[in-house]
Amino acid sequence: MAGFADRVIAASESKDSVLVVGLDPNVDYLPNVLAPTQESGRAVAEAISQFNRLVIDAVADHAVAVKPQLAYYEVYGSDGICALEDTIRYARSKGLLVVQDAKRGDIGPTASAYAQAYLHPSSPLCGDALTVNPLLGADGVNPFVEAAMQHATGIFVLVKTSNPSAGQWQDLIAADGGTLSQRIAAYIADIARNHRGEHGYSAIGAVVGSTYPQDALALRSIMPHSILLVPGLGAQGGRADDLTGYFDAQGQGALVSSSRGITYRYCAVTPEWKHATIDQVFASIREAALTSQRALNNARHQSQRIR
Amino acid sequence: MAGFADRVIAASESKDSVLVVGLDPNVDYLPNVLAPTQESGRAVAEAISQFNRLVIDAVADHAVAVKPQLAYYEVYGSDGICALEDTIRYARSKGLLVVQDAKRGDIGPTASAYAQAYLHPSSPLCGDALTVNPLLGADGVNPFVEAAMQHATGIFVLVKTSNPSAGQWQDLIAADGGTLSQRIAAYIADIARNHRGEHGYSAIGAVVGSTYPQDALALRSIMPHSILLVPGLGAQGGRADDLTGYFDAQGQGALVSSSRGITYRYCAVTPEWKHATIDQVFASIREAALTSQRALNNARHQSQRIR
Repeated sequence: MAGFADRVIAASESKDSVLVVGLDPNVDYLPNVLAPTQESGRAVAEAISQFNRLVIDAVADHAVAVKPQLAYYEVYGSDGICALEDTIRYARSKGLLVVQDAKRGDIGPTASAYAQAYLHPSSPLCGDALTVNPLLGADGVNPFVEAAMQHATGIFVLVKTSNPSAGQWQDLIAADGGTLSQRIAAYIADIARNHRGEHGYSAIGAVVGSTYPQDALALRSIMPHSILLVPGLGAQGGRADDLTGYFDAQGQGALVSSSRGITYRYCAVTPEWKHATIDQVFASIREAALTSQRALNNARHQSQRIR
Repeated sequence: MAGFADRVIAASESKDSVLVVGLDPNVDYLPNVLAPTQESGRAVAEAISQFNRLVIDAVADHAVAVKPQLAYYEVYGSDGICALEDTIRYARSKGLLVVQDAKRGDIGPTASAYAQAYLHPSSPLCGDALTVNPLLGADGVNPFVEAAMQHATGIFVLVKTSNPSAGQWQDLIAADGGTLSQRIAAYIADIARNHRGEHGYSAIGAVVGSTYPQDALALRSIMPHSILLVPGLGAQGGRADDLTGYFDAQGQGALVSSSRGITYRYCAVTPEWKHATIDQVFASIREAALTSQRALNNARHQSQRIR
């Protein structure tokens, strides 16, 4: 199997897309026809599975990957994790990559167990890539790197997150130079350089939020061999127009994720959304995905022109 | 219900213990009589549940809390999470606090979902406290603080972890003073000061690894109102003798966790451990817990003498 970065770029070229659709299920936003029939964890999990399948069908032609945000499954315990397992299987059967947004990070042996859970094909929770929190340093990150190399999966290490307080620690300036984000980026770059695939990119990527475009150019240049996973488009305030600096001169090198702005678009545009039909929900999600795909492609082409 | 810190101190006084037993199940270390009968995820999860119940019975008189390390459950997907749910229920029924060692951290809305999953009593994964990764800054930590306050649960924020590369980022010296660890500690202290319980401690605790005793005195004094969760005793090289600086003048203010050194002690001391009986395993775990309890109490008394 091709390495993760080459699979991303192949999917991106064949679909003409860099869109990732976040799967952050919230049953409060389901129309009556899709809402859980009971309050039990199992009924809620079943509703989440069904809704995610609908989303996957609606976005499969327009998105490269889906990105389940694990908190929204863990909140229903083992029932929620069953829904997540179903979602992973279904997405992969529809030709979508699966990026598990779990932000895991731990000491070495525990990081190895997380890597086994999310990056080893024998695990029921294995996707194509995992987001990783680097706060514990190299011996908390290396097990993920090793698993990614061994199983042709990938990781995205948190470098600059999309939230308002991201800079509280990530922008801390070190006495011997650089911000914490830049230091982490340089560390990632050293690993990525040694693991490049056919297209020059490595399976060792980085999260750089869409809400900090002024930081992206510097981080992009520190990490020339890392695909950037760019969250925060839409609901968090990131704008596709601002993303030119995240791409390389070929308009590649970044995957951009939008969640609620696509999956719950119908709540924003349809006053009577509680009574929406399945067909209406499907059409709304598909159109929102197409709109995001095109807006991102504009940013990619802009990036190709200015470089 | 009393706040988390007051519940910790009450349990610690009534059991004369500050010991936390880590539950990091690894079926390779189970004797034949406890090993899974099949390779299926469900059979493995069942074996983990049974072993954890044995550990809980063996340590309930000697430990204040158990600390499941979530990676070792996630590796078996939804089956593993079922085992975790069973373990949480059983531990609480035996009067043990449950610290979920999940190191979660995310942007605001997602952090709220994690807080709901681990700190809200209605969740099947709710314990008494959760470890939290602060890399995303205040809006990634606040939802956990709010949930802890609302539900009389607690958090332990990663300040200085126990692993060899902990210092790679955590010891980074900021241009305007202090290490990253110290800056995070000062931030935690500000929150904890406003949420003190009857004994002067807050539900907002901090993780400070047992392997860095030279840092502990400074971090202890920056965070006078935070209970320290101190991992790394035993297998990771931390020594009870080195821990005096983690406690306050009353010998309180820290919980010390040991995992493999207690739960798999029989593998180290019994050459024929694969053939050990349940009674032998139980006795070994109980004795290892008692030994750790006493060693930690010596460190606490030492701390009271020198202050």
